Amino acid sequence: MTNLPPSDRCRVRRKPERGHYDRPTIHAILDAAHYCHIAFSHDGLPQCLPMACWRVDDHLYIHGARQSRLVLALQAVAASVCVTHLDGLVFARAAFRHSMNYRSVVIHGHFATVDEPRDKARSMTAFLEHFSPGRSAAARPPSPAELAATTILRLPLHEAAAKIRAGGPADQGEDVSQALWTGVIPCRTQYLAAQPAADCGAVPRPSLPLGAGT
Amino acid sequence: MTNLPPSDRCRVRRKPERGHYDRPTIHAILDAAHYCHIAFSHDGLPQCLPMACWRVDDHLYIHGARQSRLVLALQAVAASVCVTHLDGLVFARAAFRHSMNYRSVVIHGHFATVDEPRDKARSMTAFLEHFSPGRSAAARPPSPAELAATTILRLPLHEAAAKIRAGGPADQGEDVSQALWTGVIPCRTQYLAAQPAADCGAVPRPSLPLGAGT
Repeated sequence: MTNLPPSDRCRVRRKPERGHYDRPTIHAILDAAHYCHIAFSHDGLPQCLPMACWRVDDHLYIHGARQSRLVLALQAVAASVCVTHLDGLVFARAAFRHSMNYRSVVIHGHFATVDEPRDKARSMTAFLEHFSPGRSAAARPPSPAELAATTILRLPLHEAAAKIRAGGPADQGEDVSQALWTGVIPCRTQYLAAQPAADCGAVPRPSLPLGAGT
Repeated sequence: MTNLPPSDRCRVRRKPERGHYDRPTIHAILDAAHYCHIAFSHDGLPQCLPMACWRVDDHLYIHGARQSRLVLALQAVAASVCVTHLDGLVFARAAFRHSMNYRSVVIHGHFATVDEPRDKARSMTAFLEHFSPGRSAAARPPSPAELAATTILRLPLHEAAAKIRAGGPADQGEDVSQALWTGVIPCRTQYLAAQPAADCGAVPRPSLPLGAGT
């Protein structure tokens, strides 16, 4: 497995030993995410917005209202997308050495519209399956009007880099002898008890989403 | 409490009823975050990077290595910062009506450097207190060399907007009669059992970070 960046703009500069460029690592971080943050330029100013996302093969997908500012802008300009998972708080003895464990992916490129109706329907199915496996067979599928109101955009992953920090603190020198708690407090996304809607009735709950119970 | 955007570029366009512009709402969302995503332009291309953050009064703070690309760029160009908390997955009967509950803040502006040494030391103390209340009195404080290697930047919050979705699904019309589970699966950040480093010794653990045990 190669671990070289595909291009200079993807290369991890700060702490390059944390950089990973292989597909399985990048895919796993994206597949664990419900949303990403998207940077793009609009009217000459940077914008940063959160959007739901899902991956199919070597593209990251998003969707939005057809006439939304984000959707219109992303059809015209370059974008950078970031997915981040916080995995833990790292307590060192020196204030300066405190850190966080995380997994992140940054992607550079241009979004393209998924126009062909069958591709669009397949993309929406993949989105719902990412949200809750099995849900797409149970939910009422999008109508032609609903599909027409939605734009699906996808970004190729060939300009992507992962950055990962794992493990404990890195105190050095005299700090190591200081009597202070040092280690990691891990964290993760936790799903809580499902809250059925008032009109839900006694029907089975959908499969738990991504990451639940792990 | 006013709920009007401070400027046009802050106004929430999509689903404006989800927009909030009052300080307590914006501060609470920022204070619940360990990190933000920052969008800025570098060499004519958008960049999106995750960074640790903390708030003091009406500024959001970040820190970075003095010579890092991010730190150098943010001293020169406009930025947009976003903090997002995913609060739940919303299951509707129609595929199209599935949604997420979330709290987010988007800030626009220019970062400024915190240069004065006492301000810088105070900012680092606030960062560590945000990480773990009480930790700044216990950890070895930053040395002059460590402080010199670190740049602290802060962004004013006067151009900021919060966007919040809460509550259940919004099925309409005939969909409501479909027998399918509908409701919300809430989620949150969960802190797991602390993992002391091998050389930690029998000393008390630091106070639990932000949000733990709630």
